[in-house]
Amino acid sequence: MTGADVLCDTLLGHGVNVCFANPGTSEMHFVAALDRKPQMRCVLGLFEGVVTGAADGYGRMTRTPAATLLHTGPGLANGLANLHNARRAHTPVLNLVGDHASYHLRFDAPLTSDIESLARPMSDFVRRISGPDSVEADTTTAYCAAVTASSVSTLILPADASWSEAQHRPSARAMVPARRAIEPAEIRALAKRLRQHRGTFGLVVGSDAAFGPGLAAAAQIASALGGRVFSEVIPGRQERGRGVYAVTKIPYPIDAALRTLAQVDLLLCAGAPEPVSFFAYPGKPSKLLPPHAAVITLGDRESDIANGLDALARELSPPPLFTRSAPQLPDKPMDGPISGATLAAILARSLPEGAIIAYEGLTSAVELFDMTAGAPQHDWMMTSGGAIGDGLPLALGAAIACPNRKVVCVQADGSGMYTLQALWTMARERADVLIVVCKNRRYAILEAEMANLGLGQIGRSARQMMSLSDPDIDWVKLATGMGVEAAKAESNRTLGDLVRTAISRRGSFLIEAAL
Amino acid sequence: MTGADVLCDTLLGHGVNVCFANPGTSEMHFVAALDRKPQMRCVLGLFEGVVTGAADGYGRMTRTPAATLLHTGPGLANGLANLHNARRAHTPVLNLVGDHASYHLRFDAPLTSDIESLARPMSDFVRRISGPDSVEADTTTAYCAAVTASSVSTLILPADASWSEAQHRPSARAMVPARRAIEPAEIRALAKRLRQHRGTFGLVVGSDAAFGPGLAAAAQIASALGGRVFSEVIPGRQERGRGVYAVTKIPYPIDAALRTLAQVDLLLCAGAPEPVSFFAYPGKPSKLLPPHAAVITLGDRESDIANGLDALARELSPPPLFTRSAPQLPDKPMDGPISGATLAAILARSLPEGAIIAYEGLTSAVELFDMTAGAPQHDWMMTSGGAIGDGLPLALGAAIACPNRKVVCVQADGSGMYTLQALWTMARERADVLIVVCKNRRYAILEAEMANLGLGQIGRSARQMMSLSDPDIDWVKLATGMGVEAAKAESNRTLGDLVRTAISRRGSFLIEAAL
Repeated sequence: MTGADVLCDTLLGHGVNVCFANPGTSEMHFVAALDRKPQMRCVLGLFEGVVTGAADGYGRMTRTPAATLLHTGPGLANGLANLHNARRAHTPVLNLVGDHASYHLRFDAPLTSDIESLARPMSDFVRRISGPDSVEADTTTAYCAAVTASSVSTLILPADASWSEAQHRPSARAMVPARRAIEPAEIRALAKRLRQHRGTFGLVVGSDAAFGPGLAAAAQIASALGGRVFSEVIPGRQERGRGVYAVTKIPYPIDAALRTLAQVDLLLCAGAPEPVSFFAYPGKPSKLLPPHAAVITLGDRESDIANGLDALARELSPPPLFTRSAPQLPDKPMDGPISGATLAAILARSLPEGAIIAYEGLTSAVELFDMTAGAPQHDWMMTSGGAIGDGLPLALGAAIACPNRKVVCVQADGSGMYTLQALWTMARERADVLIVVCKNRRYAILEAEMANLGLGQIGRSARQMMSLSDPDIDWVKLATGMGVEAAKAESNRTLGDLVRTAISRRGSFLIEAAL
Repeated sequence: MTGADVLCDTLLGHGVNVCFANPGTSEMHFVAALDRKPQMRCVLGLFEGVVTGAADGYGRMTRTPAATLLHTGPGLANGLANLHNARRAHTPVLNLVGDHASYHLRFDAPLTSDIESLARPMSDFVRRISGPDSVEADTTTAYCAAVTASSVSTLILPADASWSEAQHRPSARAMVPARRAIEPAEIRALAKRLRQHRGTFGLVVGSDAAFGPGLAAAAQIASALGGRVFSEVIPGRQERGRGVYAVTKIPYPIDAALRTLAQVDLLLCAGAPEPVSFFAYPGKPSKLLPPHAAVITLGDRESDIANGLDALARELSPPPLFTRSAPQLPDKPMDGPISGATLAAILARSLPEGAIIAYEGLTSAVELFDMTAGAPQHDWMMTSGGAIGDGLPLALGAAIACPNRKVVCVQADGSGMYTLQALWTMARERADVLIVVCKNRRYAILEAEMANLGLGQIGRSARQMMSLSDPDIDWVKLATGMGVEAAKAESNRTLGDLVRTAISRRGSFLIEAAL
């Protein structure tokens, strides 16, 4: 068997059975090996940003890595922005990059580039497979790194390692990498310190602390200490809705973010870094906590944060958890034009149990987070690294990961244009996704930032770089051009009808909502 | 004035007056500075691959750099593939990347990444501006590097260098960086060696040797020595057509490439590297020349190759240049279905004087190169680095660079999907581009490579990764959805009519040609 066969078998042995791919010539032997393994589901993306973004969405939901398949340095480069988001969201991804045969590199053929230099900034693990007999060990190491650190492992596969015969067959023994347990003594010491604290306590959750048992424990800890649980500015995956503790999301705008954390004087970071401003602004602080606040970080990237929180919660013997009452929604959609708030209300009212929201609405429908606090239980995903163009691919990957859950993608028009090719794969894979494009015809976030920065009037050149209205973008044509059914909504009534219809049936459907 | 103002003024001082841009928050002060400088033409791309690819097309035609404007590491990452093509095509590009304020970096905010590590593989020059008072010197150095080495200079602009006050105003003295002249003694020695050579001589041209006086001199040299001039496998810009020496293009398929160069035993490389196989294939050589062939490289990346060739031609006192007769085209388009050959014949027959062909047809219409040898004088551009997704952006950039020349973009459907957002900018900028999408509904090049590699039958998974037919992609909807007029051609008659109409008028028009 070839190195490519060993790679395939090793992946399948570890339970990696979805490969998001856009292969090229140097990957043809791996493609041939995939052909011999029908257990591996191959999902084609027509651009690498779709491939890596879908792997991100998949890994956020399953918490196990999908494989990618990218073609040399430029193929990797096209996928880096969404690997950046995956890394920031603590998503396990096994990122495979094909390269020239090793002996061919010194000829500097046109597609040659320094793949390691490209990969490192967006990967926590990078390795080049040295030959067919190191495929199994390298793949297993990369897999374990992706799982234990919840991060991006990049594995570079030279064409000759792929096409050469391997001497031994892979053992096909599945690895179940264990996360590092947080020591009981550390938990006890932490509990003692927290009990002694007399100020305002907060807890910010990310990664495995933002959903499931991790979030439940975080909520108990906050309840025991009379504090609040905060969600990150751009959470990778946040569980919410009825029956789930309602986290307070740290807002994106700097002044609102500072206000939200102004009272906190002790913050426990669980699976999330200390909150900092997304950008720097002249005269405003980079850290979002008050200067006097103390910060404690629970474990590190490789720690079992969820179990650590659970142990801490038991140590603190919290009272029974209170349930925060859900905000009331307006009774009925109003007549008249669509706004972010009406769009949010319509979606919040229609959200089905178990939905997955992939939100890249940016400045549009920001009300949706608060409005869905009382919706049926659901998961909320955002573009964690701030690299726009992750909304549609995240939705695609989540739909592949969770075929029995409805995915709702709330997508700004500007960032949606980055990776619109994801629509084609949604159609091909019969993904169950409702996409609502918030069409405000501009990079509204930049207009807001110009104001934030005190830059005054927007002139002709700046307007030219922030407006998407000349020419108008017709999302219904774009979607149907790629096989996704679509319709326009220019009133709340139409929008409500379309949302309800799309949610009641399976398959991908795009609504262009004119804001 | 701010550092951003100094940057703007310095660029304009050096004649850089086009900025292809997709800015973000960290670039807002530079955007505000652009707003005060109406001399700078700002061209928005809705994805960074469009931005860098358009800068590539612009620089190939003007031989002077356009500026780009990209947003932090992920924005740069999205543009890297086409910077890779630009670098391989010897295109001068001044690649500006905004970053966080320098003091904000240590907080590792979500968009933070190692920009230098990302930039280096696709740039020959990388510098981070240290503060507002180094903006002028750093920008001038980056500009000179881009021009003298015909390459990509990446300049990283921290937000605080941009927004802080600079102490001195820029001198606004234009730099005209000179390329290094090749020494007369070197030319004489080379001429002597070439005259003594008794075997088959060849000359491969790239960069400035592939058009204008450089190509004319190369043709004279080949004529004097009884040899041929070859174009690179994927030329960045090759001048051709009536009255221009007809180069022989080295084919992409490895066996054909080996046959083309089989007789050459002395090759002079002028602005191009020694020809190597695009990929490695088991049992086939990496070098395309016969093992016994000698290779001489004229100068280096910073040399004045065109003048060097001219001096060499004069030293060799060539006879008057012969003109190769142009291939005959079939008389009329045939009835019936469109093939690559009929599409090529129709385009070749309609090509206007001074056209610029941006060819990313890959396996489709490969006949076009030979068929246009006798067409009116034109330039031919390809995806030099092999990173697909450069066809539409190249066409856009060339149209901005040469508003009085018709641009014809021959675009494969698979690679066209990579950067289809370029269509929107074409519509906005009223670019005069005819786009012919060769719709064969598959990654045909990969099917050919599977066969090349002896991988046998294409099975279900491989087919899934090479077919674009489920769902069908409707390019007319995609184009009109972004404001570009479009029509489908399913017969040669319709195709011919549409091509003639589109060429006779100005503006962007897309034809979906069903192959």
